[in-house]
Amino acid sequence: MPESHPMIGGDGTYSYTKNSYLQREGIKYAKGLIDETIAHKLDIKDLLSNSRSFKIADLGCSVGPNTFICMESVIQAVKHKFQSHGLTEQIPDFQVFFSDHTFNDFNTLFRSLPPERPYFAAGVPGSFHGRLFPESSVHFVHSSHALHWISQVPKEILDKSSPAWNKGRIYYTGAPDEVGKAYAIQFAKDVDIFLDARAKELVVGGMMVLILPGIHNGISHSCAVVNVMLDLLGSCLMDMCKEGLVSEAQVDSFNLPMYVPSPKEMIELVERNGSFKIERMELFDPVPGNEAQILRSGHAWKMHFRAGLEGVFSKHFASETIDELFDRFPNKAAEKLKATLTETTLLFIALKRK
Amino acid sequence: MPESHPMIGGDGTYSYTKNSYLQREGIKYAKGLIDETIAHKLDIKDLLSNSRSFKIADLGCSVGPNTFICMESVIQAVKHKFQSHGLTEQIPDFQVFFSDHTFNDFNTLFRSLPPERPYFAAGVPGSFHGRLFPESSVHFVHSSHALHWISQVPKEILDKSSPAWNKGRIYYTGAPDEVGKAYAIQFAKDVDIFLDARAKELVVGGMMVLILPGIHNGISHSCAVVNVMLDLLGSCLMDMCKEGLVSEAQVDSFNLPMYVPSPKEMIELVERNGSFKIERMELFDPVPGNEAQILRSGHAWKMHFRAGLEGVFSKHFASETIDELFDRFPNKAAEKLKATLTETTLLFIALKRK
Repeated sequence: MPESHPMIGGDGTYSYTKNSYLQREGIKYAKGLIDETIAHKLDIKDLLSNSRSFKIADLGCSVGPNTFICMESVIQAVKHKFQSHGLTEQIPDFQVFFSDHTFNDFNTLFRSLPPERPYFAAGVPGSFHGRLFPESSVHFVHSSHALHWISQVPKEILDKSSPAWNKGRIYYTGAPDEVGKAYAIQFAKDVDIFLDARAKELVVGGMMVLILPGIHNGISHSCAVVNVMLDLLGSCLMDMCKEGLVSEAQVDSFNLPMYVPSPKEMIELVERNGSFKIERMELFDPVPGNEAQILRSGHAWKMHFRAGLEGVFSKHFASETIDELFDRFPNKAAEKLKATLTETTLLFIALKRK
Repeated sequence: MPESHPMIGGDGTYSYTKNSYLQREGIKYAKGLIDETIAHKLDIKDLLSNSRSFKIADLGCSVGPNTFICMESVIQAVKHKFQSHGLTEQIPDFQVFFSDHTFNDFNTLFRSLPPERPYFAAGVPGSFHGRLFPESSVHFVHSSHALHWISQVPKEILDKSSPAWNKGRIYYTGAPDEVGKAYAIQFAKDVDIFLDARAKELVVGGMMVLILPGIHNGISHSCAVVNVMLDLLGSCLMDMCKEGLVSEAQVDSFNLPMYVPSPKEMIELVERNGSFKIERMELFDPVPGNEAQILRSGHAWKMHFRAGLEGVFSKHFASETIDELFDRFPNKAAEKLKATLTETTLLFIALKRK
């Protein structure tokens, strides 16, 4: 049973709805890449030979509004392709499947659906580390900021007798190589299971666009700003441990279930799986130049992390511990951000079902 | 915009989950009718010529568990049909669309899905008095205890200058003919819109099974036990009005948005619409004989009504008024039930898309 880490539901201060700025910027930038992919790589005629409707799945949709913006943009690009091929009359109905863990807040998602949406909406509860749809029933899969969640923390990370025991940290940044390797192996397993499931669900010629945090080939994991920030969050927890606010055993038994891969790693995983052709893969910076200033703010990173990570922390720590942790984080983060490059890199991957 | 009347969510004392006995009995009995319909009337070969999966929609699914029991039973019947035709190898994947109003508690629904279900699950938020699915994308529609909800209370019912003004009542039982007629006209409009939408969504040859409260042809609406009970609920409210606990204007401006048709009426509506062939239509009693004893209990009727109707009442009345109303109801109901036949009749309708 894969673990579930829903984003914070509702629309409160720390909700994902109000704190998904970085994801939204990523989506804005990725829109151009998705438009190009659909324009140049999607074969609309073959795809619809057996269906009168075009079915799109957003995996790891959370509660909006990012997923709505994204789905409309995919649909616009597909419609535009029909129009540019003189097939305006044949534009199909669209059906969008919003999918996320069973404990995602689907009530909030459904109640905030745009009233004038150009598609029929459905919600699909379940883990994408497994089957979600019938065979050959989906034409286009989108997944943004989701695939970097691994289905479980690797067991050896928690094993005191293993060289991969991750003592005094909550993540693999700055850890012994064995820790990073254990994370990488778990990620590879999960991606393979993910690709196998999608290969069954997508029609032949169907496409998949994946957007997730990524690092440049050949650089250390410690050089990616998101990893630096997560490492720092861990060090705040260690500070609290030293002050006796949380026990060492509690920190040692907690690890963040996520992994940030390089393009080279992803290419190897897709090729080893064998069901998909890589149509495009590249790293991009969603907030280049001046706009990145917001990411020099420790508070901005706090809100970003809290909306996304509180679900994971709250399964392990008391709410006062979490409040204290996120209260400590911004100052420490601000210092580091002055000295560190704030390039945030996302990995864009477009695949076609062989 | 059709009105929305979700059943009570969660799993508390008055939740639909815990108080849908009558609906469940109806489903148990209807199972035999559905099995026969699928065995004798569903053409599986034609249906799946363009799809590798069999798609079922449950419209007005509420929060379970009735909908789960029901969907599994439909799938068993379809599988059995494949097996009995020597087509075991060709049994398709099943996808079930659980659909109800946007304010239905989909979180509860999703979290209580049977873990070992023989289908891929999706939720579809929206009113069935309108389109919910792409063109020709569904093979089988089921709707139980839902179509009797009308999309709005007819306007003339609330108009003091109209002969259909429904003063001193909350329903059409025991009201002037004009009131019943206004309800019947609204119901006819809604059923037509419902059939038009389903005609677009179902593939040709696709089937639809509808189960809703019904009355015998040619009898007065006041002779159906459900109508008698609703009338009684109205009279409890009138008692409270006389005691000054609720204002006359508030009672006069409230009416229950539901209608119980006869088979004759339904036949006329389906034939006038023209998109469906009637394969079977009959009234049945879901709790015949001894089992009906439970329905001689005022308390049982109270729980049954409160789970289903509180959503409607709570839009109009304060919660203390609703508590008082449902506290008064059981005693009054018990007296009436001693004297009244407790036959509850449901209407079973099987339609095929022409």
